Amino acid sequence: MSAPEVVREIELLRERLGSVRNRQQSIALVPTMGALHAGHAELLRIAREHADVVVASIFVNPLQFDRKEDLDAYPRTLDEDLRVCAANGVDLVFAPTASEFYPSEPLTFVESPVLSRNLCGAFRPGHFRGMATVVLKLFNVVQPHVACFGEKDAQQLAIIRRMVTDFNLAIRIVPVATVREADGLALSSRNKHLSAEERAVAPVLARVLADAHARIAAGETDCAAVRAGATELLQAEESVRVEYFEIVDPDRLTPLEQVTGAALIAGAIWLRRTRLIDNLFWPGTG
Amino acid sequence: MSAPEVVREIELLRERLGSVRNRQQSIALVPTMGALHAGHAELLRIAREHADVVVASIFVNPLQFDRKEDLDAYPRTLDEDLRVCAANGVDLVFAPTASEFYPSEPLTFVESPVLSRNLCGAFRPGHFRGMATVVLKLFNVVQPHVACFGEKDAQQLAIIRRMVTDFNLAIRIVPVATVREADGLALSSRNKHLSAEERAVAPVLARVLADAHARIAAGETDCAAVRAGATELLQAEESVRVEYFEIVDPDRLTPLEQVTGAALIAGAIWLRRTRLIDNLFWPGTG
Repeated sequence: MSAPEVVREIELLRERLGSVRNRQQSIALVPTMGALHAGHAELLRIAREHADVVVASIFVNPLQFDRKEDLDAYPRTLDEDLRVCAANGVDLVFAPTASEFYPSEPLTFVESPVLSRNLCGAFRPGHFRGMATVVLKLFNVVQPHVACFGEKDAQQLAIIRRMVTDFNLAIRIVPVATVREADGLALSSRNKHLSAEERAVAPVLARVLADAHARIAAGETDCAAVRAGATELLQAEESVRVEYFEIVDPDRLTPLEQVTGAALIAGAIWLRRTRLIDNLFWPGTG
Repeated sequence: MSAPEVVREIELLRERLGSVRNRQQSIALVPTMGALHAGHAELLRIAREHADVVVASIFVNPLQFDRKEDLDAYPRTLDEDLRVCAANGVDLVFAPTASEFYPSEPLTFVESPVLSRNLCGAFRPGHFRGMATVVLKLFNVVQPHVACFGEKDAQQLAIIRRMVTDFNLAIRIVPVATVREADGLALSSRNKHLSAEERAVAPVLARVLADAHARIAAGETDCAAVRAGATELLQAEESVRVEYFEIVDPDRLTPLEQVTGAALIAGAIWLRRTRLIDNLFWPGTG
C-alpha cells in the first residue's frame, strides 16, 4: 500500500500514461467526484483486477450540477479520498482544478436525448449532458482500456455504455454491483447529509425495490401494478417524497408496460433536502 | 503512385492502424463524403506533408443530411475517388457501409449549440450535430495525429476545432485554403448539379465576398453596411436566392456589428435547386 501520485495537470498525466502505454501496460479508469466510500473502494478493487495501472479521477464537475446549492454542498474530502485510493491499489490520482479541466467556456457537449429523457433525467435537466461530457473528456485524457462504473447510477451506466458504442470508443465498460449497508441502504456520498431520523427511514427505498423485484419473481408482469404497490409503500413513510418509481427497458430506459424480459426497477426519493436513488435489475445484474 | 488499400470494416482498420502506431509512424486523416475534386486533392496533399500515413475516409453520412433528397442526390463516384486518392499519396481508404458505421440506432450525439446557431446552422437543423458526431466517430476509429479540413466549410471547421479543444482530443486540426476555379467559384461536389447557365452565374458569390473583403480592407467597419451592399449585389442576379450573408466572429460565429479584429465573411445562395456556400477570413486565413 503505497500512496498514489496525485497529478493535477492534463499534460503531466498524458506524459505519465504515455510511459505506461510504452511499457505495454493496460490502464483502468475509475471516474469519481471524490467523497469516496466503500462503494468507490469496490470500483477501485474491480479496476485493479482488470488492468496493470489504475487511475482514479477526482473532479467535482460543475457541468453536471443542475443546482448550484448541490454543487456547493457536495462533500470534498481529498485527504481521506487519497487514503481510500492508497488502500485500494490506485497508481495515479487525477485531480484537476476546474480551470485546468475547463480552460475555456465549454461549447461542445455529449447529448443522449432518448436515454436522458426518463428517470433522473426528467428531474435533473442538463445533468446527464454534463456527466457524459466530462466522462468523454476523461476518457480522451486517460485513454483507458477499461473503465468501471457503479450499477447504483444505472442511468449514468446506460448512457456511458451507449456512448462508448455510438462513438466507437475502444474502452471496455465494467459495471460494478451496488454496495449496501447492512440494512440495505445503497452507499452514496449524499448519505452524509441524512439526519439520524432520516437515516433510519432511508432503507425504505431498497426494501421497496426488493419487494417489487420479488413480486416480479413471483410472476407479476404488470408494471402499473408493481409501480402502484411500490409507490404506496414509499408514501406510507411520512417523511418520504417520491420523485419517481419506474420499471424501464434496461438499455433504452423507456417505461415498460409488461415485464417480458430484462428490466430495470429504479426509484428516487427525497428525505427533506437529500435525494436518494437506487435500483435493481431484473432478472439479475445487467 | 500505388493504389491505396480500401478497408470497409472498423476492426480491420484498427488492426492496420495498430501496426502503423507500433512502427511509431504518425497518421493523418482526411474525412470526406467522396465525390472528390481538386479541393479534396489539396487536403490530401497537405495531409501527406503532416504524417507518415494518410487515411482518407469516404462515407456519405446519413446523419448530417437534413433533407433525404439531398442525401439521395449526393454524388457517389467511388472508382474515380480511388484514382484521386492514389494520385495524392493516400495509404488507406476507409469506406464503411452505413450498417458497419451505424450498427445500431445512434442515441448519442455531439452538440455545439452556440456554434451551430448561425450561418448554415440556422437553415440546416441537425446538420452540424450529424457532422460533428460522425467526425468524432472517425477520430475514435482512426485516432489520427493530424486531421485536415477545408476552410470552404468554415462553420464545420470552427465546430471541429472547438470540439477538439472541449473534448481534450489529442489531434491537430490543419485548416486548408479553399481551392477555386479560374473565375473564383469555390470547388464543391455540389457544383456538378449546376446547369451551364447556373454555372455562369455561380461565381457571383465569390466576387461579392471579395468585394466585402475589399471594403473592409478600405476601412469600412460597419458590418450592416457591408452586409447590405453584398446582399444588394447578390440580389441583382435574378436567378440567385440569398440564404444568408453574414460577418461573424471567426471562433464563436456570432454576428459582429463592427469589424475590430478577425472576422469571417460568409454567404450561402441558392441557384434553383443547388445551394452554394463560400467565405473569406478577414484579415487573412484563420
